[in-house]
Amino acid sequence: MRIAIVGLGLIGGSLALKLTEQGYTVFGLSRSPLTCEQALARGAVQECGTELAQLQAFHPQLVLICTPLEQVLPTLTALLPHLPAATVVSDVGSIKQPIVEPATQQWPWFVGGHPMAGKTTQGIQAAEADLFVGRPYVLTPIAETRPQALETLQSLIAAVGAESVLTDPARHDRAVAWISHLPVMISASLIASVSQEVDPLILELAHTLASSGFRDTSRVGGGIPQLGVEMARHNREAVLASLRSYQQHLQQIETWIEKRNWDKLSQFLEQTQRDWRQFPVNQP
Amino acid sequence: MRIAIVGLGLIGGSLALKLTEQGYTVFGLSRSPLTCEQALARGAVQECGTELAQLQAFHPQLVLICTPLEQVLPTLTALLPHLPAATVVSDVGSIKQPIVEPATQQWPWFVGGHPMAGKTTQGIQAAEADLFVGRPYVLTPIAETRPQALETLQSLIAAVGAESVLTDPARHDRAVAWISHLPVMISASLIASVSQEVDPLILELAHTLASSGFRDTSRVGGGIPQLGVEMARHNREAVLASLRSYQQHLQQIETWIEKRNWDKLSQFLEQTQRDWRQFPVNQP
Repeated sequence: MRIAIVGLGLIGGSLALKLTEQGYTVFGLSRSPLTCEQALARGAVQECGTELAQLQAFHPQLVLICTPLEQVLPTLTALLPHLPAATVVSDVGSIKQPIVEPATQQWPWFVGGHPMAGKTTQGIQAAEADLFVGRPYVLTPIAETRPQALETLQSLIAAVGAESVLTDPARHDRAVAWISHLPVMISASLIASVSQEVDPLILELAHTLASSGFRDTSRVGGGIPQLGVEMARHNREAVLASLRSYQQHLQQIETWIEKRNWDKLSQFLEQTQRDWRQFPVNQP
Repeated sequence: MRIAIVGLGLIGGSLALKLTEQGYTVFGLSRSPLTCEQALARGAVQECGTELAQLQAFHPQLVLICTPLEQVLPTLTALLPHLPAATVVSDVGSIKQPIVEPATQQWPWFVGGHPMAGKTTQGIQAAEADLFVGRPYVLTPIAETRPQALETLQSLIAAVGAESVLTDPARHDRAVAWISHLPVMISASLIASVSQEVDPLILELAHTLASSGFRDTSRVGGGIPQLGVEMARHNREAVLASLRSYQQHLQQIETWIEKRNWDKLSQFLEQTQRDWRQFPVNQP
């Protein structure tokens, strides 16, 4: 199969590396000639171009749009004049509702995708062929999606060693609000509230004494600010709903502590300990 | 120096191992004969007893109370009849205000201590001699504390490879509320709010898709319930104050998202990214 990858960052570059390794013919597209050079040097792509029009001569059967979220729809629109009929197209955006319906209306061979893999480092230099191995890779077909487009994506996911997870765009976005976007907001608020301690001796002490518990709880709140804004902006309703539900629990904890209701607090923490184990990522 | 350690769990056992290794004579005390056997078998202590009265014949110069927090004061009271005059006593409780003043009134050779080290596993079996190496070890002397008692503790801290940090009990308790107790409450609320998602397909998806970001943010909220209750109960005022300040930040984030004030959210997340780096534990 002939696959074009538009955008050769961490995700696009890692997909390119693995698919080349698996024997596919991969054409890379990047706005940066330097990125193209690096992708060719790493053997991630067999050919590389900087203009979407160069795709025409490649005759791709599948195009993966691996740009930042806000560029997915404009990239699709710009791509379409250069694509053979029935070329399957997918993206890797971390929020699906704003993308999938308009994209599918334009091109029913579009399937929304979201590989659940990442690293703290970005760019083609950080790419690795095995980034997706054993990880969930979400696909969000809707009623208008062509079935053969979905099948093509499922075989691609198997080829990169990931596990297909099928759902609809709205459920995807609500699930990632819970497990990815809400954690950023609560973690950032932790950093902010500690850092605004008014007694400089207590603040210094907090800096000195913070250890693995604080490090883990504050990690995603100290991440790239643009990603946090992107989550809130493009998944606004789901993030707001999760924040509201979250605050009710926190308010409940505050009330129990105020009223010295240790039994209730204890039952609550026993329940969260049990619930915590329900997440496969938390299992030993 | 002759040192007695009362309570041979993870902390007491690790102190015993290291101090024996450093050439001190260590007497262990545990209510459990099995724990005594294990401590002797591991070479953590030279002698071990199950009754406080057995201390009398040992003539300790320093006693470390390594019991759970709620047993520190009763243990001190029970110990005193068996101690030579001017024996230095310290504890390892994670909250200092409820302990230090009453303990010092009873015995001015008492110094409150809190070694900032731990593991997810508990008990003498999990003990390790190097648990404290390079870690902060807080001491909270007050006006009535005898200076030579503080000096004795400081040399002990150097012997176990830790770094002395001096502060007062109130500042200690406020700092640990920020970096240890508040994180437990916010992390537990995350687990609770996700787990009460009413759409079973979204909940299942959240379980499947949760990865390192969720794992880290939820870790301390999935910990031992009794520890969370102990924090809230014995550090109630500081935990309530930190919860209130925290909720203001979260409410502010919600308002920005509601009003689509992306500039403010962006500035906030840029600030938390900078503040996050101020914590030595977050530095590479």
